[in-house]
Amino acid sequence: MLLTDSRLVGPVRVVGSGLLGTSIGLGLRAKGIDVILDDASPANLSLAVDYGAGRPAEPDDSPQLIIVCVPPDVTGRVVAAELAAFPDAIVTDVASVKVQPLEELRAAGADLSRYIGSHPLAGRERGGAVAGRADLFLGRPWVVTGHDDISYREGSAIDDLILDLGAVLVELSPEEHDRAVALVSHVPQLIATLLAKRLLGAAHSSVGLAGQGLRDTTRIAASEPELWVQILGANAPAITPILRAYRDDLDAVLAALEHPTAPGARRTLAEAIAAGNAGVAAIPGKHGQDRRYSQMVVMVDDRPGELARLLTEIGASGVNMEDLRLEHSPGAQIGLAEISVLPEVEQQLTDELESRGWRIAGASL
Amino acid sequence: MLLTDSRLVGPVRVVGSGLLGTSIGLGLRAKGIDVILDDASPANLSLAVDYGAGRPAEPDDSPQLIIVCVPPDVTGRVVAAELAAFPDAIVTDVASVKVQPLEELRAAGADLSRYIGSHPLAGRERGGAVAGRADLFLGRPWVVTGHDDISYREGSAIDDLILDLGAVLVELSPEEHDRAVALVSHVPQLIATLLAKRLLGAAHSSVGLAGQGLRDTTRIAASEPELWVQILGANAPAITPILRAYRDDLDAVLAALEHPTAPGARRTLAEAIAAGNAGVAAIPGKHGQDRRYSQMVVMVDDRPGELARLLTEIGASGVNMEDLRLEHSPGAQIGLAEISVLPEVEQQLTDELESRGWRIAGASL
Repeated sequence: MLLTDSRLVGPVRVVGSGLLGTSIGLGLRAKGIDVILDDASPANLSLAVDYGAGRPAEPDDSPQLIIVCVPPDVTGRVVAAELAAFPDAIVTDVASVKVQPLEELRAAGADLSRYIGSHPLAGRERGGAVAGRADLFLGRPWVVTGHDDISYREGSAIDDLILDLGAVLVELSPEEHDRAVALVSHVPQLIATLLAKRLLGAAHSSVGLAGQGLRDTTRIAASEPELWVQILGANAPAITPILRAYRDDLDAVLAALEHPTAPGARRTLAEAIAAGNAGVAAIPGKHGQDRRYSQMVVMVDDRPGELARLLTEIGASGVNMEDLRLEHSPGAQIGLAEISVLPEVEQQLTDELESRGWRIAGASL
Repeated sequence: MLLTDSRLVGPVRVVGSGLLGTSIGLGLRAKGIDVILDDASPANLSLAVDYGAGRPAEPDDSPQLIIVCVPPDVTGRVVAAELAAFPDAIVTDVASVKVQPLEELRAAGADLSRYIGSHPLAGRERGGAVAGRADLFLGRPWVVTGHDDISYREGSAIDDLILDLGAVLVELSPEEHDRAVALVSHVPQLIATLLAKRLLGAAHSSVGLAGQGLRDTTRIAASEPELWVQILGANAPAITPILRAYRDDLDAVLAALEHPTAPGARRTLAEAIAAGNAGVAAIPGKHGQDRRYSQMVVMVDDRPGELARLLTEIGASGVNMEDLRLEHSPGAQIGLAEISVLPEVEQQLTDELESRGWRIAGASL
């Protein structure tokens, strides 16, 4: 065993060399840890080794920790095989559902005293080894789903892995995790997908009116079908109650719109929109704070360097920009930059930018 | 009448001094046009006059063009009153629905040879006079909805207004307009609203896992209930068919998720996600182009000036940044900047930024 500046000691075995497996390997290699890579595809394995994410397995390897980074459909089976093949190792996985793998392992009689599931919420799960980055997990939540069959001491190897990779450790039960990701990820995915589907076959003049609202609402619908079918299928028990409640709300709104002048119809619509306002406000803001910012929209000519000049001048004004969004107007060689600042400095920044010739176009996109 | 550098000649009368009315007044005043403001609320009127959006009405005013900028519920009635009070003026309105006002005017026997509806798609319709900006319409689509009762010559005064304000003229029938905004604005609003509503009462640990996907999908759910109830009610006939088709798709997906291992269930999910992929691809990109960009994610320390430094260095590399999105990771003093560039310059920019010490965190947020 090699002593390093990390909390973990190696060797660590990573099974599956897609985006997550490769990124974990790169992150641990950067800490000086011996990483053993394995993949059902020899071509994928060579690629990840070429990228420096680890070395191929050798017959006498004795890993202390194994991280299974394979698609959700096969996660339970691969974890069970790893537990059997390496009777001294702690095994985790990174699948985005957590109840199903645990149930599969329990049904298969696997040694659960050495398994603890986990899930890094790190970008989209696609891209393969070529998109892998040692920094992929920096600042991202990484959920660990404990259970009664593993001791605190055994489970803590996973905590060390997460902290070594710079992620933020979140502890939830498998059921809590699956309900949480159903709500914040899987249901939004379906909602966005079905909305984007409505755009198929629409007149070009219609979609040409699309603004930032439609773009934002449908962005995640560009996700990979194969992976999402597995995720949605595996987490169906947590998704369906939320989706059913959504469908019931939708039916109520639809009934109101079918008779918009009937008694109560406008109230139904108003209550839905007000509830949506409250729901958005429940999403934590920057750095988990709930503080709200003022938005101002600045016109930026579509030339290289103009946006940098704007941000430099904002920096020079001494105002800290809390967030930035860009929008390009259809048919115009001009962009709009929406800048979020603390409400108390909005007027100062407006005056400052206008005095430097910037045009302020409105209060929000 | 005053001759100006604009296409329009004044005086122009603007009825309603909210965000849109005030912005139109400011834009026309900047062109040297005499703008007469009116508002049912004397306080709102004084405020818009104070901001320089125009002057109060006088008894012998004889406007050539009248723009009605009042909420959708009262648009038809106010347009009818203006047509009757100023028998020589052309009248337009800016309501975000177009069939209902025309039908109301036709039913009321109004002089449709002097009325043509229009709709500027300029940000959110809120904020009042205080948020008004002369540049609000620059580069934004502004739909004109012609009909058979007005001549080409009479209607062209509206074209001049739109071009004077720097907007992009789009011609649609009232029905085409209402179907288009139902698809790209009103249905997405409802979809996002009902999704955000699901977050109410969720555990803090659940919404704490929210990433950019949920934020984007629900952002527009923060909209004002009063205005949206009017818009949705007025455009119900165009919204309901789209929402019904959405609900039917949702029911099919829900049925698949209730029996995820049944024959055909996975195919239903896969086809929905693939259709969503195709729908997203149908939304025009920057400047109406359909060209796709490569995304790269750069880590940016959360200190004033760091983002400006990044953009300055991108500018210095000679690469044109096509788009930029920021994300702040929960619990971390670090931000992620997703930069869109042409695929052929991605590697060059990656090398350039890494050589300057920037950390590239992945291929997309």
